[in-house]
Amino acid sequence: MSNNKQKITPQAENFSQWYQDVVKEADLAESSEVRGSGIVKPYGFKIWKLIKAQLEKQIEETGAEDVYFPLLVPIANLEAEKEHVEGFAPELAVVTHAGGEKLANSLAIRPTSEAAMYKTYAKWIQGYTDLPLRLNQWNNVMRWEKRPRAFLRWSEFLWQEGHSAFATKEEAEKEVWQMMRVYEDLYKYLAIPVLVGRKSESEKFAGAEMTISAEVMAKDGKAIQGATSHYLGTNFAKVFGINYLDKLGQTQLVHQNSWGLSWRSVGAVIMAHGDDNGLRLPPNIAPIQVVIVPIIKDGNDKEVLQYCREIQKNLKKLRVHIDQRENISPGYKYNYWEVKGVPVRLEIGAQEVQSKQVSLFRRDNGQRDKVDLADLPQEVKIVMKDIQQNLFNQAQEFTKSHIHRIEDVAEIKDQVGFFEASWSETKESEALLKEKYSITSRVLLSKKAEQKPKNKKCFITGKEAKHDWIFAQSY
Amino acid sequence: MSNNKQKITPQAENFSQWYQDVVKEADLAESSEVRGSGIVKPYGFKIWKLIKAQLEKQIEETGAEDVYFPLLVPIANLEAEKEHVEGFAPELAVVTHAGGEKLANSLAIRPTSEAAMYKTYAKWIQGYTDLPLRLNQWNNVMRWEKRPRAFLRWSEFLWQEGHSAFATKEEAEKEVWQMMRVYEDLYKYLAIPVLVGRKSESEKFAGAEMTISAEVMAKDGKAIQGATSHYLGTNFAKVFGINYLDKLGQTQLVHQNSWGLSWRSVGAVIMAHGDDNGLRLPPNIAPIQVVIVPIIKDGNDKEVLQYCREIQKNLKKLRVHIDQRENISPGYKYNYWEVKGVPVRLEIGAQEVQSKQVSLFRRDNGQRDKVDLADLPQEVKIVMKDIQQNLFNQAQEFTKSHIHRIEDVAEIKDQVGFFEASWSETKESEALLKEKYSITSRVLLSKKAEQKPKNKKCFITGKEAKHDWIFAQSY
Repeated sequence: MSNNKQKITPQAENFSQWYQDVVKEADLAESSEVRGSGIVKPYGFKIWKLIKAQLEKQIEETGAEDVYFPLLVPIANLEAEKEHVEGFAPELAVVTHAGGEKLANSLAIRPTSEAAMYKTYAKWIQGYTDLPLRLNQWNNVMRWEKRPRAFLRWSEFLWQEGHSAFATKEEAEKEVWQMMRVYEDLYKYLAIPVLVGRKSESEKFAGAEMTISAEVMAKDGKAIQGATSHYLGTNFAKVFGINYLDKLGQTQLVHQNSWGLSWRSVGAVIMAHGDDNGLRLPPNIAPIQVVIVPIIKDGNDKEVLQYCREIQKNLKKLRVHIDQRENISPGYKYNYWEVKGVPVRLEIGAQEVQSKQVSLFRRDNGQRDKVDLADLPQEVKIVMKDIQQNLFNQAQEFTKSHIHRIEDVAEIKDQVGFFEASWSETKESEALLKEKYSITSRVLLSKKAEQKPKNKKCFITGKEAKHDWIFAQSY
Repeated sequence: MSNNKQKITPQAENFSQWYQDVVKEADLAESSEVRGSGIVKPYGFKIWKLIKAQLEKQIEETGAEDVYFPLLVPIANLEAEKEHVEGFAPELAVVTHAGGEKLANSLAIRPTSEAAMYKTYAKWIQGYTDLPLRLNQWNNVMRWEKRPRAFLRWSEFLWQEGHSAFATKEEAEKEVWQMMRVYEDLYKYLAIPVLVGRKSESEKFAGAEMTISAEVMAKDGKAIQGATSHYLGTNFAKVFGINYLDKLGQTQLVHQNSWGLSWRSVGAVIMAHGDDNGLRLPPNIAPIQVVIVPIIKDGNDKEVLQYCREIQKNLKKLRVHIDQRENISPGYKYNYWEVKGVPVRLEIGAQEVQSKQVSLFRRDNGQRDKVDLADLPQEVKIVMKDIQQNLFNQAQEFTKSHIHRIEDVAEIKDQVGFFEASWSETKESEALLKEKYSITSRVLLSKKAEQKPKNKKCFITGKEAKHDWIFAQSY
């Protein structure tokens, strides 16, 4: 029986293959018969459930309420906002027949719900007392993908999408950043540092005035767009007629935001923390936080298993699993759970039983330790915190050390990571960059938006630079 | 400003209109632009969230794990099981175009996921150690409806669907009943008694060997199918090739179950508990369990609101809301929250502040009481339990008193409720019953399945009766 660790391609050899191998060997997900759509298996889904539970709590704390709008959207609604339909039309899946008949008007599966919700917002919002309106939904959306990738780029994905309407631009702009802070906190919970700032004209959401993004650096130096928050201005309010009477009885357009985070975040966890041995999960979202591996020898199974169960009881506040599979060696089990990224492994054999100790192995740094049984609950608690922090620190150091300041576009070659450069912010220069180097602007970091560029000349065109931006290849 | 209570049609006048009025006036849901699909609003969705949270816990306790399979299903998969496709083909919504192109093979939006999952089950299940496989998913499904009704019959609905595979028929049959007990417990949590038993050949799930159902009686005497659990036998295993090698190395087919509960349960809560004043929610799933209405007079608002907040603090384990809306009379607020079914209302005016008391109103029975502030947390706790029990008792008494034993089909006329009758169990007699009386068999109660019929003659055909069945009109 060859172990699952041996089946993982080293990151340095082929990162893309490494990712596929980890998704498979950690038993997270697989592709389905429906091209572009994936099947998420129990272990992978549990990670998403734990992420979702945390974000759900955070969103509720902001006062937004959950709703459910239909999966299907009249095509005419999608066409109402010109930029929006241009952005999404190529990715739509269209229902033409239903209930045994051809539909008079085809319906699209929602690629996002602005066009599904905002006609109703126009009905619900009449006066200033109806504002702000802040609703959220957890659902599935569909954007037809030609080049699917597990979690990061499937045609169908699960996410939450929040949709807010405010009386004023100021309130909307406040919330668009507030929700981005919610996402930053969520990523912190995943031990992942993010780069936050606004998107360029080419990269913003189709139909938005401004998009703010949280960008994650994968270990191959590419960017993962981890979450976005959009200020939609009055673009949709105009086409869907979302007006309200203000205190003076004047008709006004609402200012809107939408914000979303999907199970791409699972992909980000894999790519930001994983190593050549597989997943490394932060304890906060590890489906199993502690795995106990009994080492059975010479018929001591009763004694050892009894001790394992005692330990499990002592750790009842954690998600603990005893691997009792028979006819499988402890070594095989060690590999198995390392690939699955379980933060802490406890190895229990005759020696541990006798000495009332436990052998503790940390997945994040490979350290081993002997812990007295009496100290175990307290020790594991400390170790969990430490792993969470260590993963964050490692990811932060990696990110920081892989942002390269460049003055000329030619410097991009052969460097792994993100690039910081002074940029003219023109669409033409970004198109050129994409074509020649496959890289795009990722964000204008918030603090950089208030500073002059380090270099007066644009790193691509040599023309006047406006700000220092972050660039990268992206997933 | 006319209050929302006045807009509700009395149940006795027109129950169907009463239901629509309650859904609207309690602000639960509304219809959408997409015919047959609904929009669930925050208050309605919160009820579903609370139901879901409870059922999620119960399902997890049985050891089933959550997964996610694609929304879209190849038509060929649906066609594999003959009875299954006959049952669902008329209700399918079909995607013919995606990503700007016509698809070579059309895809259906899942009406249920047997056909979406079981080819993969065939891959995952190889040997007896892969069994049992017990997976569950929370998702949206689509069954095109010609006559939609909020929550009970929308084209798109949210639900959970569990799919299990076992080595033996015995294990499968054990689980199919086990999961029905999970649903019975869930309905008990909703203060709703259910009638549990197996379905007739005409009424069982398309493709199943046996369907067990939990039937709820609405206050108009009609039946709501509240949850179902199906023993699929080896029907799907045969067509999808789900085999395993047993301990002797023999190839065997698996025995399968599927079981589901949807947001119809919200409809059941409305129809089982509601009265002419609107919703009556069991405390377990009331989005607001206690509403506090301040009675402001002669500028005493600070004092009264301060007292309200103190009370809210004392009740912090409950979902409490203070209705601080200005320029709205207490009487209007009373009606408003009664329609929304809030179990307990506390009325706080100058008198209550002075006497350190609280006026407590119970939605379930209309009783009012004065409670000393010091006793409030304890008293509210007792009242909550009592309301939960009282709603269950009322529903149980209503159900019991509306099951009519009949010996002849002609007795059906003008009677509201369910009917118990001795039946020959033939498809022809059921078809006749449906056509002439619009009623169908609901369940063969478990205990009745082991007894001989009270009457030897079938109440429809006069031929030999097999068992005593429950019949009713159904939603």
